[in-house]
Amino acid sequence: MISVESALEIVLSRADPIGAEDVSLPDACGRYLAEEVRSDLDLPPFDRAMMDGYAVRASDTAGAPRTLRVTGQVRAGQQPDRALASGEAVQIMTGAPVPPGADAVQQVEKTRALPDGQVEIVEAVEPSQNVAPRGCEARAGDVVLEAGRRVDPAALAVLASAGRARVRVGRRPRVALLVTGDELVDPAERPVGGQIRNSNGPALAAQILEAGAVAEPLGVAPDAEERIAAAVQRGLGADVLVLSGGVSAGAFDLVEAVLAAFGVEVLFERVAIKPGAPLVFGRRGSQLVFGLPGNPVSAQVTFDVFVRAALERLQGSRGTASRPLVDVELLAPFRNRSRRKAYLPARVRADGTRLVATPIRSAGSADVFAHAAANALLVLEADRTEAAAGEHAPAMLLRRFFEGDA
Amino acid sequence: MISVESALEIVLSRADPIGAEDVSLPDACGRYLAEEVRSDLDLPPFDRAMMDGYAVRASDTAGAPRTLRVTGQVRAGQQPDRALASGEAVQIMTGAPVPPGADAVQQVEKTRALPDGQVEIVEAVEPSQNVAPRGCEARAGDVVLEAGRRVDPAALAVLASAGRARVRVGRRPRVALLVTGDELVDPAERPVGGQIRNSNGPALAAQILEAGAVAEPLGVAPDAEERIAAAVQRGLGADVLVLSGGVSAGAFDLVEAVLAAFGVEVLFERVAIKPGAPLVFGRRGSQLVFGLPGNPVSAQVTFDVFVRAALERLQGSRGTASRPLVDVELLAPFRNRSRRKAYLPARVRADGTRLVATPIRSAGSADVFAHAAANALLVLEADRTEAAAGEHAPAMLLRRFFEGDA
Repeated sequence: MISVESALEIVLSRADPIGAEDVSLPDACGRYLAEEVRSDLDLPPFDRAMMDGYAVRASDTAGAPRTLRVTGQVRAGQQPDRALASGEAVQIMTGAPVPPGADAVQQVEKTRALPDGQVEIVEAVEPSQNVAPRGCEARAGDVVLEAGRRVDPAALAVLASAGRARVRVGRRPRVALLVTGDELVDPAERPVGGQIRNSNGPALAAQILEAGAVAEPLGVAPDAEERIAAAVQRGLGADVLVLSGGVSAGAFDLVEAVLAAFGVEVLFERVAIKPGAPLVFGRRGSQLVFGLPGNPVSAQVTFDVFVRAALERLQGSRGTASRPLVDVELLAPFRNRSRRKAYLPARVRADGTRLVATPIRSAGSADVFAHAAANALLVLEADRTEAAAGEHAPAMLLRRFFEGDA
Repeated sequence: MISVESALEIVLSRADPIGAEDVSLPDACGRYLAEEVRSDLDLPPFDRAMMDGYAVRASDTAGAPRTLRVTGQVRAGQQPDRALASGEAVQIMTGAPVPPGADAVQQVEKTRALPDGQVEIVEAVEPSQNVAPRGCEARAGDVVLEAGRRVDPAALAVLASAGRARVRVGRRPRVALLVTGDELVDPAERPVGGQIRNSNGPALAAQILEAGAVAEPLGVAPDAEERIAAAVQRGLGADVLVLSGGVSAGAFDLVEAVLAAFGVEVLFERVAIKPGAPLVFGRRGSQLVFGLPGNPVSAQVTFDVFVRAALERLQGSRGTASRPLVDVELLAPFRNRSRRKAYLPARVRADGTRLVATPIRSAGSADVFAHAAANALLVLEADRTEAAAGEHAPAMLLRRFFEGDA
């Protein structure tokens, strides 16, 4: 049984980027940059007015109020048709280029239009006031996005500004997903006898998509070696193979035997994590193979801790963890009797200057309800059997933390 | 000019859910539940073994080691074929139903198989030990997911467990997007004269998608009333119309005039926010209309603060804000000279027990580079012109906070 840290290190050391492709801007969102991006221009490309008002020479406004002659107008998108001389003002709109000869803009609220093409500048301006000088945001040639950066709407604005209508991003991994278990029936069916509904199939497929990968469901296989083997065979072409179930002490040999028959090199098979513990990681050529526990909360949590981190790396992320860890203050005790590193369902919220956590009552690693009610997982090390109210502990924020009111 | 709080209240009071539809589980992910979900079963549906080992009567193990007779085996998915009597043990796998007559499971590591179909129970067990009793996770009829909940992988596991292969979720709003400005050229083009590239189109379309809505781009319109009107005409069938540009003091009348011509009731047109200030919100029948500023950072930030919150509500979210606000400690001063509520680009990270923030140098509300480098927006109220290092302030966490290593 190896530690979470050692297991993650092994996983990440095997998770190299699987390749890149050029995509257009809308398709780049959610992907990881496979190149660093430089601006092809100074930005702004000209001295730009930051206010609606009048372009002036600042020295002409000393001792304001001062009256200047309005010699023209320049709107966003226009090029000024002439330079500005002393004593002159040009009406200017936000985003328009400041005419040569002008060095400041006075906002319209601090001016007064006069008859006969004149304007009174009511307050003096300093040189550069309300002007964004050419190149103040970025210089031509500057790296404006690093390789490995996840593309989000703000990064799309940068790509567009830098002249990149297409960009190179990491390829999305194809992830074959096989759920195993004699006890599983479809969610639409009513379980009888010892059956339960298959919740890992829908949850893990969605986790694969959320991690930016493509899910290729192989369905559900019963605990029978030849059936598991047939499904694994169909999943061998994918970048990653994820199985759930069949790895606990009782049934473990089944999945291990199948993986061995296909030449999968197993790199670890138990991790000191709760929920989890039985957790197989291996590889077959460049394909990564994860055998997750069958218990639904164990499957979801070990996916978040290990598989997600790997999927992001395969796409070119440079991150080392897939979820932020923040320190929180406990409002009630959390217990960990597992002698493994525990990820306990918790509700984290901001309380003034503190992030505070309350435990969520859970009936164990099959309690999908407790897990769905959590917005974070409180992390207690193996030797920390109890953390009292008032103590601090790290919490891994789940995406739900981010979706709700914190 | 109204406050951010008043403006958000007006927006949310107009943003009622637009309807619901039944979808299958994979399609439910990212949507908001339009019904409360109840379990149709006790879960687990039977007393379930939580370990691989032996089902026993706890009283038979008192004074262990004790030797019991193994009378059978039950695996996950099987129904026990007979009850267990005193002196007997049944080999059992994780997830299998505990046979009638047994009240505990001893894990296999604390047992020793003996010849002649016997097993030594090395350590005594308590009644209920390693057994998840029927209904301990949820009772038939229990509400297991509230209406308004965003469906994520963990919620999919709950839906599957509760027997819901289909579920009712809020309809995705269709959002028509029109970018205006004479100065705009396509990202693939090289701007000349007073031109700049259109970054709002790609960024806002991606923000619409990220908020769970469907973007219907109307392209770019120059600052000409009839061109804007023609585009708005095409966008009238959508649930929401988002425009960017044409709302600042200089050009404001253009967009206002077009909206007025189409019978849009304007509910506010200036908000005390920086970046932003010019920000039009109105409605036309059930259609919501947002006129965002043209400056790209202003457009992205006001989208996150107002439009995203509205889009979530239209889908059935019960939240009141679209991004979590957490209190952070400042590592360097932040300044707000705007006399408006400021959302300043910041980098927030966890430092031990504290969330700390450093400012990101920005050249203003067109500086898409500074905005893309931020993972949070530090919020300073209008009257808080400076916050010194060591002081606290709220920060609105952007999605990027969540994507990177915090």
